[in-house]
Amino acid sequence: MEQTTVKQPLQNALEQFQALDQKITHYYSIIGLADWDQKVMAPKKGRNVFAKAAGTLRTEVFKLSVSEEMGSLLDTLSASENISALDEVTKAKVREYKSYYQKSKSIPAEFFQEYAILTGQANDAWEEAREDNDFAKFLPFLEKIVEYKRKFAEIYGYKDHPYDALLDEFEPGLTVKILDPLFAKLREASVNLLNRIQKHGKQTRNEIFEQTFSIEKQKDFNRFILPIIGFDMEAGRLDETVHPFAQTVNIGDVRLTTRYLENNVRSALFGTIHEAGHGIYEQQINPEFEESVLQSGTSFGIHESQSRFLENMIGRSKEFWSYFYPTLQEYFPTQLAHVSKDEFYRAVNTVSPSFIRVEADELTYNLHIMVRYEIEKALISGEIEAKDLPEIWNKKMQDYLGITPLSDTEGVLQDVHWSFGGIGYFPSYSLGNLYAAQILRTIEKVLPEFKSHIENGRFDVIQGWLKENIHQYGKLYTPNEIIVKVSGEELNADYLVDYLEEKYSEVYGLEEK
Amino acid sequence: MEQTTVKQPLQNALEQFQALDQKITHYYSIIGLADWDQKVMAPKKGRNVFAKAAGTLRTEVFKLSVSEEMGSLLDTLSASENISALDEVTKAKVREYKSYYQKSKSIPAEFFQEYAILTGQANDAWEEAREDNDFAKFLPFLEKIVEYKRKFAEIYGYKDHPYDALLDEFEPGLTVKILDPLFAKLREASVNLLNRIQKHGKQTRNEIFEQTFSIEKQKDFNRFILPIIGFDMEAGRLDETVHPFAQTVNIGDVRLTTRYLENNVRSALFGTIHEAGHGIYEQQINPEFEESVLQSGTSFGIHESQSRFLENMIGRSKEFWSYFYPTLQEYFPTQLAHVSKDEFYRAVNTVSPSFIRVEADELTYNLHIMVRYEIEKALISGEIEAKDLPEIWNKKMQDYLGITPLSDTEGVLQDVHWSFGGIGYFPSYSLGNLYAAQILRTIEKVLPEFKSHIENGRFDVIQGWLKENIHQYGKLYTPNEIIVKVSGEELNADYLVDYLEEKYSEVYGLEEK
Repeated sequence: MEQTTVKQPLQNALEQFQALDQKITHYYSIIGLADWDQKVMAPKKGRNVFAKAAGTLRTEVFKLSVSEEMGSLLDTLSASENISALDEVTKAKVREYKSYYQKSKSIPAEFFQEYAILTGQANDAWEEAREDNDFAKFLPFLEKIVEYKRKFAEIYGYKDHPYDALLDEFEPGLTVKILDPLFAKLREASVNLLNRIQKHGKQTRNEIFEQTFSIEKQKDFNRFILPIIGFDMEAGRLDETVHPFAQTVNIGDVRLTTRYLENNVRSALFGTIHEAGHGIYEQQINPEFEESVLQSGTSFGIHESQSRFLENMIGRSKEFWSYFYPTLQEYFPTQLAHVSKDEFYRAVNTVSPSFIRVEADELTYNLHIMVRYEIEKALISGEIEAKDLPEIWNKKMQDYLGITPLSDTEGVLQDVHWSFGGIGYFPSYSLGNLYAAQILRTIEKVLPEFKSHIENGRFDVIQGWLKENIHQYGKLYTPNEIIVKVSGEELNADYLVDYLEEKYSEVYGLEEK
Repeated sequence: MEQTTVKQPLQNALEQFQALDQKITHYYSIIGLADWDQKVMAPKKGRNVFAKAAGTLRTEVFKLSVSEEMGSLLDTLSASENISALDEVTKAKVREYKSYYQKSKSIPAEFFQEYAILTGQANDAWEEAREDNDFAKFLPFLEKIVEYKRKFAEIYGYKDHPYDALLDEFEPGLTVKILDPLFAKLREASVNLLNRIQKHGKQTRNEIFEQTFSIEKQKDFNRFILPIIGFDMEAGRLDETVHPFAQTVNIGDVRLTTRYLENNVRSALFGTIHEAGHGIYEQQINPEFEESVLQSGTSFGIHESQSRFLENMIGRSKEFWSYFYPTLQEYFPTQLAHVSKDEFYRAVNTVSPSFIRVEADELTYNLHIMVRYEIEKALISGEIEAKDLPEIWNKKMQDYLGITPLSDTEGVLQDVHWSFGGIGYFPSYSLGNLYAAQILRTIEKVLPEFKSHIENGRFDVIQGWLKENIHQYGKLYTPNEIIVKVSGEELNADYLVDYLEEKYSEVYGLEEK
């Protein structure tokens, strides 16, 4: 046997830590499967009781993560005399558990339970409020959630802004100080570009999508492209749900869902490509990280960068449709007979302000996020209160998108996130776009054949690059470490701004600024 | 608040016991879902790693079930000064956990683990052996499994026969002493009836099934009959697997699978009806037992009685096809145009000795079980050894069914059960038939309209009766308590013997004995 420099007590701690990590990860894997099942497969009548069963396992995971055993292991492993002896992988695992442990151990159990009950009720109230277009029904719950979130922020702690504590849950290390200038630049450029498109843009043939596209054929086409763009169907599935999502069970089992609409061929198509971006990220993580906390994507933002990169930078590119459009025409010969490849490309890139975030195009999408980001920040700092939201929402929609929602259902009530307490989540979506554009610029530099790879359907080369540079690492590196490692610099809004400017100037025949 | 006669320490123990019961049941519910998923939904590449995750949860359940906490709670609750204060429901829960605890706590953890590894390997070896028709490949594993099972029998303990200890795992209270005379009578009567059918029986039109039946239409028909015969589709699902089964997640979530073959319309149809029998049992358990150990059927034998009752006594009855045949003809007009209802009824009751148990008809099925029962009993007692099995198997097949398998694949290697250590399982199948016939005689007495209810599609009345008298109780009563409660007497083979004699004399136009 090789000699080792690791001392015995540390060795014990390492083994115990590894066993605990594995147990927690195993439980998360089962919870992931159960979550997927309840959304996709479970019959109606069993769901309420099953939610209690799943809750029991979730509670167990929480207890293990904040247990005395975990605390003492983290203490031992991060003690100054030990930390230097740890390898990079173990250090990353310790970092992940420590961050959760430190945040969660100071939350009294009852506080956590009350909050869990509140979000359960809030979700029902939100559904009803949205259905009835009655913000007042949701308001008392939203007020309480904001109150709790302000308290969480205090418990978690922050340096400059209380919202930082919440952002950190979704994007470790992210702060208002970092985000404000990035988002300001993106917002201004987007509003400006949108105005120019609306004034001077040459219209696209968006009406081609107002035809009937057989759902069976849509399904076939989706299943046809998935493996080509890099999703391994032997390590995943594609199913149907009203709200598409991707769920990982383990590296060899990543499940996507999409939604087919007969009168909207774009919805399932780009939904599938988007979720495939999430899924391929998880499928390409280093198998050595399997059964450990490192076995998933590093943050919501980096995850979203992978889905948006595949959906928008690749899936809405001219080269993508050079490769796939002839086949799509074969699937839908009548509908697409008189639509040229270029017309189709322009049509899938139609920019048009709309009320609903999830239906927004690539450009206006970020403006929807700005509305939410600014509101969340001000809510948590106490500058505004929940009751003022409909008014503020509508005002910002008018300012940025030039439209005012006709109802709260199409406005402030449209998203589920606040009802489950996900304040701090929304910025991830635009962060994803920012990361994606920065990654695009890098890949175009180091892989000069990038565009022709798309044009020739060589997605394996592109996915290989993403695996090598991003995917394989799982949670080994923090989001900031990843973007610096990939692109050589911190996150920079210029890349997305330039990309949008360039792409949409071309699509809409605008003169360069 | 009402005054209670339960003293405080007992009250504490009751609350703790209930919490532990709920936790264990929650975990079983999740394991059930995971098992279903891995067989029905999971992509190939994730299954090995997921099996480890599920193993972690299974181990946890085992630990909880044999924990010191459990032991001390069971001691308290079954102490002489407390037991009389317990209600019937709690008593039954204590009985269930106590039985498992007493058996399992004496098994050393390593012994259990070695055994788990062995059965894992044995399953692979069995698959290979079956595929290659090479018993020698499975033999060393089977020998070890038999050795372990003999040891388990000694650890569990028994009064008369070591096999009793294994039977008890599947059918609490069942012994060789009870089973021997029941099975001897059934075997003799079946062999006799089979001989008479082969000599004097008027042939059925079995060849009508040698046509192509579109799988899509089969699916539609299966989905059409399921709710009519009593399976609640809002509390369950129907999917496809190579080996059909029923899996309970909870009372509101019971999942069936079936297998469609284009050249065999019977396979899916009776498979579905059979599994629905299992499923309806579970769906109709008293919801008050949900989230407790009582929330499932009381034993393998009683469970099988419900599937066989629905499949054979109802699903293969003349009245069933009076009701459903016209619709089946609408689904398959060409195939069934020149087949009368009576011809169809006789054809689905064709008796024909065959090598494979799962393809056997209602009469010869029990003879397949007799072969296995006698072999298992002699193996465990040490009268025979694993190496002698192919010879003994073929001899018994010849004696009882009059045919000798052409290969071990079609003989001693056909079933999965021994490879996972399920020695003692097979008798449940014939027990199910015995129970079912006894229940049939009772129901015909107390529900004189039974046959016309079938003929009129009033399965709700029949399922209502089964719910009232059997299903609702879950594990509240032991199998013997249930059959006595329902029929007023202990299990008696005469009912099945008479039923088979009567039915097949009519189907095959035999003279009564």
